[in-house]
Amino acid sequence: MHTDVRNPNIKETHTLVASDMVVGTSVYDPQGNHIGSVERLILEKESGRVSYAVLSFGGFLGIGTDYYPLPWSMLTYDEGLGGFRVSLTKEQLEKAPKYGADVDYDWSRENGQRIHDYYGVPPYWTTVM
Amino acid sequence: MHTDVRNPNIKETHTLVASDMVVGTSVYDPQGNHIGSVERLILEKESGRVSYAVLSFGGFLGIGTDYYPLPWSMLTYDEGLGGFRVSLTKEQLEKAPKYGADVDYDWSRENGQRIHDYYGVPPYWTTVM
Repeated sequence: MHTDVRNPNIKETHTLVASDMVVGTSVYDPQGNHIGSVERLILEKESGRVSYAVLSFGGFLGIGTDYYPLPWSMLTYDEGLGGFRVSLTKEQLEKAPKYGADVDYDWSRENGQRIHDYYGVPPYWTTVM
Repeated sequence: MHTDVRNPNIKETHTLVASDMVVGTSVYDPQGNHIGSVERLILEKESGRVSYAVLSFGGFLGIGTDYYPLPWSMLTYDEGLGGFRVSLTKEQLEKAPKYGADVDYDWSRENGQRIHDYYGVPPYWTTVM
């Protein structure tokens, strides 16, 4: 059990976590370097499944307002770091699918496939929960 | 397709929606009366599934800081209203499982069962997506 210091009333269990503990949370590379934060989550409306965590890496890549959709399965919460750990190098991130803050991103199945292909993980719509 | 007026870069498709379009969004009763808003989402960490939408009904019930966890499956987005519709009466809400802002809510399976029993919907952990 872990109590969120920002919102003492939100208890995190081993299985459940509040969205306001995820959005804004820091993301670290495998070496523990801070590389960005979770900007928002993208959900499947009907099923309520999180499809993507959209990351912003402004301070890391110096491009401020670009957003990187990552398959949710790529994020692992690290209690010690107080944030998410992703198995990504800076080089992988620089070439990853992204969209700008002023762009209408097309959340189509085709773009979804492209994102999952890039990261080499099975698309969420092919996996049973 | 619907473009969020607050965040023009977030496109809502028929299947996907951004978390920042859900959190803070108004909730209406079957008659279209505004009864509250979505305070946060509660997610299953591993699967990334939304377990509950936590609603606050401050203005409606006059109790300000109480939070009402609702199974995600109970919320239906209504384009016309620009918010979620729930099939609940005021009387049902007044007696629903809730927790106060100053309380550590116990997100146990037992409490989850209690919530689902109250609303008469199958628990999310018994349904395959």
